[in-house]
Amino acid sequence: MIIGLDVGGTKALGLLVDPETGAMVARAKQSSAGTGEALVATLATMVDELSEGHQPTAIGLGIAGLVSRDGMVRFSPNLPDLVEFPVVDSLSAVTGLPVVGANDATAGTWAESQLGAGRGASDFAYVALGTGIGAGFVVNGQLVVGAHGFAGEVGHMVVDASGPAHITGQQGPWEYFASGNALGRLGREAAAAGRFPAGVDRVDSIDRLSSHHVVELLRSGDGDAMAIFDEFCREVARGITNLLMILDPSRVVIGGGLADIGEPLRAGVDYWLGELMLGAAHRPAPEVVLAELGSDAAALGAALLASDVS
Amino acid sequence: MIIGLDVGGTKALGLLVDPETGAMVARAKQSSAGTGEALVATLATMVDELSEGHQPTAIGLGIAGLVSRDGMVRFSPNLPDLVEFPVVDSLSAVTGLPVVGANDATAGTWAESQLGAGRGASDFAYVALGTGIGAGFVVNGQLVVGAHGFAGEVGHMVVDASGPAHITGQQGPWEYFASGNALGRLGREAAAAGRFPAGVDRVDSIDRLSSHHVVELLRSGDGDAMAIFDEFCREVARGITNLLMILDPSRVVIGGGLADIGEPLRAGVDYWLGELMLGAAHRPAPEVVLAELGSDAAALGAALLASDVS
Repeated sequence: MIIGLDVGGTKALGLLVDPETGAMVARAKQSSAGTGEALVATLATMVDELSEGHQPTAIGLGIAGLVSRDGMVRFSPNLPDLVEFPVVDSLSAVTGLPVVGANDATAGTWAESQLGAGRGASDFAYVALGTGIGAGFVVNGQLVVGAHGFAGEVGHMVVDASGPAHITGQQGPWEYFASGNALGRLGREAAAAGRFPAGVDRVDSIDRLSSHHVVELLRSGDGDAMAIFDEFCREVARGITNLLMILDPSRVVIGGGLADIGEPLRAGVDYWLGELMLGAAHRPAPEVVLAELGSDAAALGAALLASDVS
Repeated sequence: MIIGLDVGGTKALGLLVDPETGAMVARAKQSSAGTGEALVATLATMVDELSEGHQPTAIGLGIAGLVSRDGMVRFSPNLPDLVEFPVVDSLSAVTGLPVVGANDATAGTWAESQLGAGRGASDFAYVALGTGIGAGFVVNGQLVVGAHGFAGEVGHMVVDASGPAHITGQQGPWEYFASGNALGRLGREAAAAGRFPAGVDRVDSIDRLSSHHVVELLRSGDGDAMAIFDEFCREVARGITNLLMILDPSRVVIGGGLADIGEPLRAGVDYWLGELMLGAAHRPAPEVVLAELGSDAAALGAALLASDVS
């Protein structure tokens, strides 16, 4: 048995996983708040809880941030207390188990590859659309981790160098246009321009309009929400088109919180890839599919990565 | 012995290669003009010539275009007669030897990986700056070919979606800003704006100003040429920064015709990567080095690829 942990900006998810079958035997959830030391204590408690009646042999730890190959968190806007903290070594010392650290999207990619929507594809891209955008790649059947462990930071790929400034300081990164935050902004822009009256009706003031309102109205068939969402799908496809040009995967797996939107997102991205991809007539269209493992992907993938090396 | 061929828009280069040592035992050059049939006849003549006194066991064929894994040229602005022509099968039928086809930049990447500036790096990016931009990647020590054989088409990566239209029909692809053609355009723009008098002096009319004039004046220390070239290096670095975010290589190898500029190009790109790369303080800077194999890279790499499977 292996334990997989997924530490996000607010919550930590823990799974006890049978690496042979991928079966999730037990699960636990905790707040991820606090200092590095406090987080390690929280995670150790989760490990104890998950281990009851079992003897796990390793821990995989997925983290929302840049995790170096030697297990240090180098950069994490969502977990600032963890930066430069040796979370992997500390957790290993406290639990007495080997710990393998990885970026959460990288871990999620491996889970989808082995047990989810990436099965059978030796070259695929996983794109996790949430508050920001993360990604991971499988090439020649192998997970792409990068020389330092930092592969997949596609949200920071600049797609509009003369475009607006993002909170990262960059101009026009993909994340500005195609994350969950971006969908909310598109809704507010449409509302402010008088193109989204149903959205305006849902909120006290336009600045409270979020991606959730857009999605809710999309589901109820509101035409304005559909137009806003179509624009969003084009922006998602724009960045994916770049990834297709660079890595030529046969399949694109769309995950992250926005994947809950389901078929409208999948179909919208699929349509815009056909419009935007250069030489679309000369190359097989990639399969566009939804992720299968939902919010378990990162913890499950971390467990599989730990299982590979334990 | 293996034969490596590199077919570009105007010329074809042939090498007889000892795959054990990478030694280039013989070389030949021909025009690549004509129909698919004519080109295969030309290549067969080169193969005969190179084979004299040796018994090559396979042929590697690098081509400036999209080459599918099954050996068809799917797309090639520089070799339009070759599109949808089964060049690999035809050459194999004529010569009686197994033939392995690949994109020229992909083949060049493998040559630099095994015998050139990529040696010892398990994750690196090769960026070939010429008339356009090609690239290739080694990940986990393996060459990235892509699901269909089309990986590395980085010139078509959009970096400025609200930018100018390129000949490809895309808006703001990297190639528009950072190819040899782009360097010429930057020179002409500066000349037209009165910021490049030494360039104007070299030509009858500004529209004849090319990248060669910019490079010549750069070498002679012209301050205006240096400013133009600095702008160019920033554009090169902008696209490379995206590749670093996506794949996290430890090394970037700069090749293609523009690599003849040498250290000013290497140093300029290196400087701008430091400026543009997000979180540069949190991650090791990639090594930026010049390619070592020059215009032999594609033919040599094609030979190595053919040797791997023969």
